[in-house]
Amino acid sequence: MSTRFHTTYHVRCPAHEIEARAQGIAVEQSVEMPLPAITDARVLADIVGQVTGIAELGEGAFAVKIALAVETVGTDAGQMLNMILGNTSMHACVSLVDVEIPLAFAATFGGPRHGLEGLRARVGAGRRPLTATAIKPQGLPVPALAELAHRLALGGLDYIKDDHNHADQAFSPFARRVPAIAEAVRRAGVLTGHPTRYVPMLNGDWGRMQAQLRLVRDCGIDTVMMAPMLSGVATLQALAREWSEMAVLAHPSMSGGGQIAPDLLFGTLFRLWGADALIFANYGGRFGFPPSMCASLSARALAPLHGLRAGLPTPAGGMELARVPELLDFFGPDVMLLIGGSLLLAGARIEQEGAAFHRAVEAYFA
Amino acid sequence: MSTRFHTTYHVRCPAHEIEARAQGIAVEQSVEMPLPAITDARVLADIVGQVTGIAELGEGAFAVKIALAVETVGTDAGQMLNMILGNTSMHACVSLVDVEIPLAFAATFGGPRHGLEGLRARVGAGRRPLTATAIKPQGLPVPALAELAHRLALGGLDYIKDDHNHADQAFSPFARRVPAIAEAVRRAGVLTGHPTRYVPMLNGDWGRMQAQLRLVRDCGIDTVMMAPMLSGVATLQALAREWSEMAVLAHPSMSGGGQIAPDLLFGTLFRLWGADALIFANYGGRFGFPPSMCASLSARALAPLHGLRAGLPTPAGGMELARVPELLDFFGPDVMLLIGGSLLLAGARIEQEGAAFHRAVEAYFA
Repeated sequence: MSTRFHTTYHVRCPAHEIEARAQGIAVEQSVEMPLPAITDARVLADIVGQVTGIAELGEGAFAVKIALAVETVGTDAGQMLNMILGNTSMHACVSLVDVEIPLAFAATFGGPRHGLEGLRARVGAGRRPLTATAIKPQGLPVPALAELAHRLALGGLDYIKDDHNHADQAFSPFARRVPAIAEAVRRAGVLTGHPTRYVPMLNGDWGRMQAQLRLVRDCGIDTVMMAPMLSGVATLQALAREWSEMAVLAHPSMSGGGQIAPDLLFGTLFRLWGADALIFANYGGRFGFPPSMCASLSARALAPLHGLRAGLPTPAGGMELARVPELLDFFGPDVMLLIGGSLLLAGARIEQEGAAFHRAVEAYFA
Repeated sequence: MSTRFHTTYHVRCPAHEIEARAQGIAVEQSVEMPLPAITDARVLADIVGQVTGIAELGEGAFAVKIALAVETVGTDAGQMLNMILGNTSMHACVSLVDVEIPLAFAATFGGPRHGLEGLRARVGAGRRPLTATAIKPQGLPVPALAELAHRLALGGLDYIKDDHNHADQAFSPFARRVPAIAEAVRRAGVLTGHPTRYVPMLNGDWGRMQAQLRLVRDCGIDTVMMAPMLSGVATLQALAREWSEMAVLAHPSMSGGGQIAPDLLFGTLFRLWGADALIFANYGGRFGFPPSMCASLSARALAPLHGLRAGLPTPAGGMELARVPELLDFFGPDVMLLIGGSLLLAGARIEQEGAAFHRAVEAYFA
């Protein structure tokens, strides 16, 4: 007997084509061959995708619901992505907007190993929102990056992450950059009494990434960042599974212009596959997600899901200090605000600006 | 002194916004912060992206040319993707259409380790086009898959690949499926005298993929398939670098609806990063690339590029036997035709259908 899970796509096409389009997706995302060529009764009954609903959304768009077989996903996050979107990603007029998560997937992938509460506990944050910033720009030599991180940490922020463009470039090689910044942030923490965390960006294939993880661990670091759509979602899964002591911030690089709805991708899928914090492009910044999408993303990250830990919504992308009250009104206390570039505009006053950011967040729910 | 390479984007926006949009991409894809906050003269001169051209394309679209710094890419294919599209992928109205490949990138990434000529040599194909098919559907038990592969190989085809949906599912676990199919194809080769290759699909993170590769090698297999946009382009790079005896077919799953132009992604980037054959959704099949895009993809895969081997263009996706002459007219001899599902419609006559396909290709340029 087959166990199925539902996926939902939005499709834009003429009304007379939608049934064929829906059936096309159901076949593409399961057996990818003409059904008349399938003679195996079990494959026809249990494996071939089934269209279970088509709803008109107006303006030439339709919601298509398809039942896929749980057993086609196996145990790999990459294969799950392959089955829920894979080849269908090559159709420009289709987006994946929902995926039902059965208990079996929660058991297989395990979700965040630390999540919202783990990331709060690392920095002794009680139930308040968290603060984060980024070390920029790439191209600075290691001592300048370490000095910048030190001054940001003196402001008492919770998490100070690498710019996601920091990889292993000659101007600041990973093996020199990470120990120097880790030490600079640690020294600041001794002065402030706040256990500010430095979060290095991981890169490369899983072999090279693990070499980076060994170095990271030796520096006393317990929180890292990676971009699942750049490094592969199976790499995120491996990181959560094999380095479960590390908390993981998922960066949105290469997450696309909406072919997977961001609330689904960040709030549900990245969380399911093991990301502890979900960095996403907030409304009103440099990117275009509407407020409703950001609210849905946050709600998904925090919603009960077969006992998985909550993910930490982390809005970012052109945020500013002046927006802190508005953002906390909108997201509530279960959030990490990430303000990067605009803090750096403070120049010589960067510590004070960081401190003002952190105080504004601390004070809001005090 | 900085060495730069050019990237080209197509942007759709009102004409009065295009200069700001272009500058926005240049900043996003380099330092990702407000320029007034950068005090380091070298970063401003050598690292910040520079808009070097804006051309109107008509109908509200523009081509934007940007010079990025070679040194920001480092040595990782994932980081290269991060720098050429990364965050900008989150803008729906932007696509990446060209990337200049300087000699430094060719030296770093190395391109195909076998390429067009290596894949021809494996099957003793001289200068003729190659033939390929796929083993489908997933869900069949291992003996049925092996039997199908055996019969397809009896038709004398060159490459018989896994369906890209074959991962490590319980109904046909990798460790049982691959040896059984490899043996079935080998037995057929003894009968036909043709060295038909079985090409298994690799999955999971690079650690698990390497365990699969060890098993694959032990089965005498020398050609594998993986999906770079699913498993991560750094994983493709690692595969080409660390298992250079394996030829690699790149599968297009998760390659998106055109946010990276397919000719660039398959013909230039996958080739640069080490893919030997480029499977792409051909015109006139289930997917929508126009003929001009397919021609450009093929031309890029074969074009001289700092001495890198040619990639093998492999059109697929709803192809049929009757189209062989048309496709060979279009692509010429430097191509591998991949006909999957429609061959399987032949049912009991599958060997004859496979043989007819192979003969049609062999005969065309004879």
